[in-house]
Amino acid sequence: DFLGALDEVHPLFGVSEEDLGRAVEGGIIHFSPHIDKILKNGRDFVNQIRTGTTPLLSVLLHGPRGSGKTALAARIAMDSEFPFIRLVRPVDMVGMNEIQKIQHLSKTFTDAYKSPCNAVVLDNIELMVDWVPVGPRFSSAVLAAIKGMMDNKPPKGRPLLVLATTSERTVLQQLQLNFKAQIAVPNVQTQQELAHIMKESGAFSSTDVQRAIGEIEQTTGSRQINVGIEGVLLGIQTAMQDEDRTGRFAEVISEAIADNSAA
Amino acid sequence: DFLGALDEVHPLFGVSEEDLGRAVEGGIIHFSPHIDKILKNGRDFVNQIRTGTTPLLSVLLHGPRGSGKTALAARIAMDSEFPFIRLVRPVDMVGMNEIQKIQHLSKTFTDAYKSPCNAVVLDNIELMVDWVPVGPRFSSAVLAAIKGMMDNKPPKGRPLLVLATTSERTVLQQLQLNFKAQIAVPNVQTQQELAHIMKESGAFSSTDVQRAIGEIEQTTGSRQINVGIEGVLLGIQTAMQDEDRTGRFAEVISEAIADNSAA
Amino acid sequence: DFLGALDEVHPLFGVSEEDLGRAVEGGIIHFSPHIDKILKNGRDFVNQIRTGTTPLLSVLLHGPRGSGKTALAARIAMDSEFPFIRLVRPVDMVGMNEIQKIQHLSKTFTDAYKSPCNAVVLDNIELMVDWVPVGPRFSSAVLAAIKGMMDNKPPKGRPLLVLATTSERTVLQQLQLNFKAQIAVPNVQTQQELAHIMKESGAFSSTDVQRAIGEIEQTTGSRQINVGIEGVLLGIQTAMQDEDRTGRFAEVISEAIADNSAA
Amino acid sequence: DFLGALDEVHPLFGVSEEDLGRAVEGGIIHFSPHIDKILKNGRDFVNQIRTGTTPLLSVLLHGPRGSGKTALAARIAMDSEFPFIRLVRPVDMVGMNEIQKIQHLSKTFTDAYKSPCNAVVLDNIELMVDWVPVGPRFSSAVLAAIKGMMDNKPPKGRPLLVLATTSERTVLQQLQLNFKAQIAVPNVQTQQELAHIMKESGAFSSTDVQRAIGEIEQTTGSRQINVGIEGVLLGIQTAMQDEDRTGRFAEVISEAIADNSAA
Amino acid sequence: DFLGALDEVHPLFGVSEEDLGRAVEGGIIHFSPHIDKILKNGRDFVNQIRTGTTPLLSVLLHGPRGSGKTALAARIAMDSEFPFIRLVRPVDMVGMNEIQKIQHLSKTFTDAYKSPCNAVVLDNIELMVDWVPVGPRFSSAVLAAIKGMMDNKPPKGRPLLVLATTSERTVLQQLQLNFKAQIAVPNVQTQQELAHIMKESGAFSSTDVQRAIGEIEQTTGSRQINVGIEGVLLGIQTAMQDEDRTGRFAEVISEAIADNSAA
Amino acid sequence: DFLGALDEVHPLFGVSEEDLGRAVEGGIIHFSPHIDKILKNGRDFVNQIRTGTTPLLSVLLHGPRGSGKTALAARIAMDSEFPFIRLVRPVDMVGMNEIQKIQHLSKTFTDAYKSPCNAVVLDNIELMVDWVPVGPRFSSAVLAAIKGMMDNKPPKGRPLLVLATTSERTVLQQLQLNFKAQIAVPNVQTQQELAHIMKESGAFSSTDVQRAIGEIEQTTGSRQINVGIEGVLLGIQTAMQDEDRTGRFAEVISEAIADNSAA
Ligand SMILES: Nc1ncnc2c1ncn2[C@@H]1O[C@H](COP(=O)(O)OP(=O)(O)OP(=O)(O)O)[C@@H](O)[C@H]1O
Ligand SMILES: Nc1ncnc2c1ncn2[C@@H]1O[C@H](COP(=O)(O)OP(=O)(O)OP(=O)(O)O)[C@@H](O)[C@H]1O
Ligand SMILES: Nc1ncnc2c1ncn2[C@@H]1O[C@H](COP(=O)(O)OP(=O)(O)OP(=O)(O)O)[C@@H](O)[C@H]1O
Ligand SMILES: Nc1ncnc2c1ncn2[C@@H]1O[C@H](COP(=O)(O)OP(=O)(O)OP(=O)(O)O)[C@@H](O)[C@H]1O
Ligand SMILES: Nc1ncnc2c1ncn2[C@@H]1O[C@H](COP(=O)(O)OP(=O)(O)OP(=O)(O)O)[C@@H](O)[C@H]1O
Ligand SMILES: Nc1ncnc2c1ncn2[C@@H]1O[C@H](COP(=O)(O)OP(=O)(O)OP(=O)(O)O)[C@@H](O)[C@H]1O
Ligand SMILES: [Mg+2]
Ligand SMILES: [Mg+2]
Ligand SMILES: [Mg+2]
Ligand SMILES: [Mg+2]
Ligand SMILES: [Mg+2]
Ligand SMILES: [Mg+2]
Repeated sequence: DFLGALDEVHPLFGVSEEDLGRAVEGGIIHFSPHIDKILKNGRDFVNQIRTGTTPLLSVLLHGPRGSGKTALAARIAMDSEFPFIRLVRPVDMVGMNEIQKIQHLSKTFTDAYKSPCNAVVLDNIELMVDWVPVGPRFSSAVLAAIKGMMDNKPPKGRPLLVLATTSERTVLQQLQLNFKAQIAVPNVQTQQELAHIMKESGAFSSTDVQRAIGEIEQTTGSRQINVGIEGVLLGIQTAMQDEDRTGRFAEVISEAIADNSAA
Repeated sequence: DFLGALDEVHPLFGVSEEDLGRAVEGGIIHFSPHIDKILKNGRDFVNQIRTGTTPLLSVLLHGPRGSGKTALAARIAMDSEFPFIRLVRPVDMVGMNEIQKIQHLSKTFTDAYKSPCNAVVLDNIELMVDWVPVGPRFSSAVLAAIKGMMDNKPPKGRPLLVLATTSERTVLQQLQLNFKAQIAVPNVQTQQELAHIMKESGAFSSTDVQRAIGEIEQTTGSRQINVGIEGVLLGIQTAMQDEDRTGRFAEVISEAIADNSAA
Repeated sequence: DFLGALDEVHPLFGVSEEDLGRAVEGGIIHFSPHIDKILKNGRDFVNQIRTGTTPLLSVLLHGPRGSGKTALAARIAMDSEFPFIRLVRPVDMVGMNEIQKIQHLSKTFTDAYKSPCNAVVLDNIELMVDWVPVGPRFSSAVLAAIKGMMDNKPPKGRPLLVLATTSERTVLQQLQLNFKAQIAVPNVQTQQELAHIMKESGAFSSTDVQRAIGEIEQTTGSRQINVGIEGVLLGIQTAMQDEDRTGRFAEVISEAIADNSAA
Repeated sequence: DFLGALDEVHPLFGVSEEDLGRAVEGGIIHFSPHIDKILKNGRDFVNQIRTGTTPLLSVLLHGPRGSGKTALAARIAMDSEFPFIRLVRPVDMVGMNEIQKIQHLSKTFTDAYKSPCNAVVLDNIELMVDWVPVGPRFSSAVLAAIKGMMDNKPPKGRPLLVLATTSERTVLQQLQLNFKAQIAVPNVQTQQELAHIMKESGAFSSTDVQRAIGEIEQTTGSRQINVGIEGVLLGIQTAMQDEDRTGRFAEVISEAIADNSAA
Repeated sequence: DFLGALDEVHPLFGVSEEDLGRAVEGGIIHFSPHIDKILKNGRDFVNQIRTGTTPLLSVLLHGPRGSGKTALAARIAMDSEFPFIRLVRPVDMVGMNEIQKIQHLSKTFTDAYKSPCNAVVLDNIELMVDWVPVGPRFSSAVLAAIKGMMDNKPPKGRPLLVLATTSERTVLQQLQLNFKAQIAVPNVQTQQELAHIMKESGAFSSTDVQRAIGEIEQTTGSRQINVGIEGVLLGIQTAMQDEDRTGRFAEVISEAIADNSAA
Repeated sequence: DFLGALDEVHPLFGVSEEDLGRAVEGGIIHFSPHIDKILKNGRDFVNQIRTGTTPLLSVLLHGPRGSGKTALAARIAMDSEFPFIRLVRPVDMVGMNEIQKIQHLSKTFTDAYKSPCNAVVLDNIELMVDWVPVGPRFSSAVLAAIKGMMDNKPPKGRPLLVLATTSERTVLQQLQLNFKAQIAVPNVQTQQELAHIMKESGAFSSTDVQRAIGEIEQTTGSRQINVGIEGVLLGIQTAMQDEDRTGRFAEVISEAIADNSAA
């Protein structure tokens, strides 16, 4: 039968227990008040579940690529200290057909119905339904399954928090994949935020920071940054290979700013 | 053969007998005359079946998401006290292929042909045919099966009431899935209705209610509410986590009103 | 082989011998001269087959939903008193795949080639090919099969009358599913026709009839009815649950008229 | 292997040897010089094959539905008196999947490569590739197979004439299904042609013919007929059930003329 | 495994060794300098492979239907006298599914990697990928396979010449099926070219040729011919069945000219 | 299970260890400063991986067909001297279905997770997902798999460099297949660059080079070359078959320039 068959579906790359941890490996930098607000919002939803006020709550973290959605969702989930926390990523389902994906997802939800407090993180949910804007293409079977599961009240006394992330919020709306609550995760926006990250990285002196910020403003002709935290951190790593670390960093970030404003 | 094969299709999440009951768990709040009218209408259709005047009647409850369609359909079905009442939900068919879905549905109808008075609730019937507006996509096999079953006169002396719910009425019309009768289920519309619910929740004093209503009107600049009962109840639960319960409630509902008028 | 495999296809809901009879259960009300003309036309086609003048004749009964097409086709077929008469309905093929549907249909035709005079009723033929206007979708395999069968001269001395019904005549034309003859089945159109049905139902006095007709004209502002016989009969059944039977009937019919003129 | 598997494909309705004969059962009425020209043209192509001047020739007979294409193609094929003549009709392949259809067709061609002179009639070739204008839909696998076979030079000394019929010539052009030669088969066009058929049917006196023609001209307001021979013959059969045979015939033909000019 | 499975795929019509020869059966008529130029071009590409200067070269012969592409590609391949020469035609793959077609093609290329000098002719390559302009439809799996194979450098010392033919050059460009070199094959264009072919056929005297050319110019009102060599040769064969061979030839060619200029 | 099943997928053409080497067989000609810059950029990315600063880096080499992308990616990968380097080409997956392709790719990545420093070259990545602009068509399953794998952080201490090549950069953007870094590979652009290659080929004297350049400028009326290195090298090979090597080379290159500016 169906549930028995579940045993036979193994993700191609395994599902390690460390996945959640790896998503927040480098720690969260509180580079802007948004970060604090997002984490506080998350704590509130966690409490709504822990107290059993609401048996089922689905929350969507949305924002541009590399803005830190996965790291923040993982942080919220880990901070809940719920007995059952599970991260599901698209790569976990690579090589599965639609039926196997649905079984993998439903096993996660079924498992979550057994613990007194549960959190499931559905990472990059638009890729989970194989969304591609060309066409557009998507798996309507997996989509239907996720809709069904996210609408299915858990058994009494097993409240469930579903945290999903996406960089394609309007796509989810078109697919009528609805959430009870939403949290926006913005890019690094201001020079101040960028400076905060540079300092915390320990790779730049205060003078370096001033110089880099100045060069970026000059190159881009604007004080607006709008680059994801991921891009900023990768920029630091690239710059560290260079003799002129500060100049290279300014160069890389300026390019990223230009790319984003062109897109 | 076909009917024999039916035994092998088990829904991934089981079909508990308590499903119908859980849909009306918190009781029905009679926050507006519409609620009474809907229930009375439902009673009339139930009688038409009970007296055998009409052997087969299909009724569609339609309205915005979270307006209470499923709760009201469940209430009408349970109040009929028919010997056979069955709720079918999309989640019951997650992980089934088209053939299995059709078998699951047809088993429900076949079972319903055995009892002297029968009611079947098809919840979120647009999801039952896997409707997605992008494409659009839907399962034409399941659609054809539902059309066939809803048009199939039951055996003599086994009258059947089919209650379906949808938040996509025009989609059903486009799909030519026709019903003999229709019932509209509206959102919470007036301040008076909202106040009714707040009071009945036991979470707010009369002064709280006045203050919340006032703040909502000020924030939204309108006396019009247009939020589903589900959103209102969830708003109360969220507000209860906050020190300023009334202020938080006004905030949450104002946001919901804004979201709905933007959509 | 193919024909042997036929034994394995069983309709999900069985094919009872009483199906034809049930389609005309309540008798035919001769509420307008059209009804007589349709039945006479049908008799002529039956004769053309009985005398063997024409070996194969396909006739399409088309008209709005609920106008009485199936009842009239069944009546014509039963009145022929041919040794082989068979009704095929979409619901008989629910849960079959395309190949099974084709086998089910071809078995019907093959059986029909064995009797000295044969009639096959294909009910709601647009649903038989799984037509859905969204897309549009349809089964081109079943369509091709029906075309082939309806064009296939039966063996010598086994003339065959095919009676098909549809509420989607233009769809059939687009699908190039052609018939040798056509019969239009209109809705109840005039007040006189409506009065005829009310009287024959035995549920209304002459005064009731006058009052209902009057109220309908007043509500709709028109003398035009344009409601299917099915809608009229269901309206009577609904009205019979009400204390003010006549008033309720006028109400229900007025709504139906409004719905139809809006569509 | 492939060729071995051929044995397992049996058409649902059998392929009787009498098929060709039945297509010309009633004889060919030479109601217009076109009929003679078509048959002479056919004889010329037959000779080109018989003398071995051309090893492979594909000819398309095209014209409106019911204009006599199949009867004329069958006549030409039978008159060739070739040792191998085969008629392939869409109904012969009802219930086959694409692979089976291709095997059925290729078996026909393979068989045709064994005889010193061969003719294959592909009737309603647009239905053979399951063409439906809605979509449009068609079987590209069967289409590719037919293209391949019609382009494949037979073995030395086994010349092959392929006669195909269609009422969708432009469709075949769009599908790039090309023929080496084409023959147009027109409808009954003039009053003189219609009179010819009426007289030859033996069902009308000269006066009857004059009266019918006159009434048709009066009803339609035109001397143009443009009805297929099939429609004319069916009209005679219908008329024969009537007391006023001539009047009824004029009526039926006038309707057919109106239908055709409306389409 | 994969390569082992290759043994099981047999073309429905066999692949005779004589195929290449049959494509040039009647000999090549050098009716225009283009023919000489095409053959010389082919010899140059053959040399580039024979000397090992280039390990892999793909050449496309393109032109209107019946212009002689296959005959010329076969001539070039045969004249190379390479130890391995293979012709692949769409008809060789009739009845194969996509996987079987790919295996059939890849076996041809794998075989070609074993000989010191190799030539593969892919005839009507647009049909090999099942191209149909309606849709459009094509096999993207076979297309991808051909792209992969045509880009795959053979092992050292096994240079390979791929000659492909098509009458749909722009289609190949849209499908991004690219070739390293291209050869255009034109229709018979001038009266002089037509006269050359007529004379070489031995079926016409010089006076006949003059008369035919004159009549064609008069009928078509132009000196431009633009008919494929295939059409010209078929015209001669048809004309030979007629008493007035010259008049009939002029008629047939004039029709072909008209058809081509209409298309 | 899944990973066990991997053993059963063997590429149709084998995966030789020499593939990477063959891609740079003729050596890299440093005909322009771009070549040096590209190789230096590549070295920097290699260092970022070797030092473990970045655990996972995906780089896209994009440019026109035949511009040298594969050769340069192979050069960068080989120069890294990482213990694990793997080239994956579309032809390696010819004849595999989607599941097999995904397994082939995932096996490559899984293997790459075992070595202390890893590089994977995904050649012509748009063909890996079977992209065809007509439709457009592509394999969304393979695309999803590649997205998942390119986003999957390798285990600790197993940093991975992914080098991909494409001539369809905007397609990848539309498919939302994103890379952390990008390198542009241009065509041969200037007369100076062309002269550089001609000289290095050893096939032309300085006078030859001058003459060829002059003739090309005269023929094309422009000093702009814009032909891929592959086209230039093939042009030299073709020219070497000709008596007038220089004149022929100028001719071939002029044609290539014309083709490119027409496209
Ligand atoms: N606030 C933060 N402070 C420090 N590091 C962060 C922060 N947010 C994210 N990161 C790091 O930035 C990287 C990218 O973040 P993450 O993967 O969460 O972004 P994302 O928005 O989920 O990206 P994607 O759209 O690709 O899914 C990770 O390495 C993560 O650890
Ligand atoms: N009149 C009511 N009084 C009190 N509670 C109600 C009422 N109607 C609905 N509810 C509650 O509100 C919640 C949502 O209602 P329900 O699921 O019936 O809405 P719905 O319209 O079916 O939503 P959806 O569109 O998502 O299917 C449920 O918890 C239900 O118990
Ligand atoms: N002339 C009539 N007199 C009395 N009852 C009729 C008449 N015609 C139809 N009915 C009844 O009306 C009902 C609906 O008719 P029927 O099913 O034949 O309509 P239909 O046009 O086939 O509908 P649909 O479009 O849904 O297939 C049936 O119960 C039938 O018995
Ligand atoms: N010239 C003719 N003289 C007498 N009878 C004819 C003639 N041509 C056709 N018929 C008869 O008319 C009927 C229909 O002709 P036929 O089936 O050949 O037409 P068709 O063009 O093939 O029709 P369709 O388009 O439906 O395939 C047949 O019964 C045939 O015997
Ligand atoms: N130059 C020529 N001289 C004599 N006969 C020729 C010549 N070229 C082609 N033919 C003959 O003309 C016929 C058609 O030519 P062929 O099949 O090569 O044309 P094609 O362009 O490949 O046609 P298609 O577009 O249908 O594939 C063949 O019988 C071939 O032998
Ligand atoms: N800089 C160079 N110096 C010398 N030879 C080169 C150079 N770059 C490429 N080549 C050679 O040119 C030929 C084509 O180059 P390559 O296959 O790398 O181009 P590509 O851009 O990958 O082409 P495609 O778009 O077809 O994949 C190869 O034989 C390669 O060895
Ligand atoms: Mg993420
Ligand atoms: Mg509901
Ligand atoms: Mg009906
Ligand atoms: Mg025909
Ligand atoms: Mg050819
Ligand atoms: Mg390349």
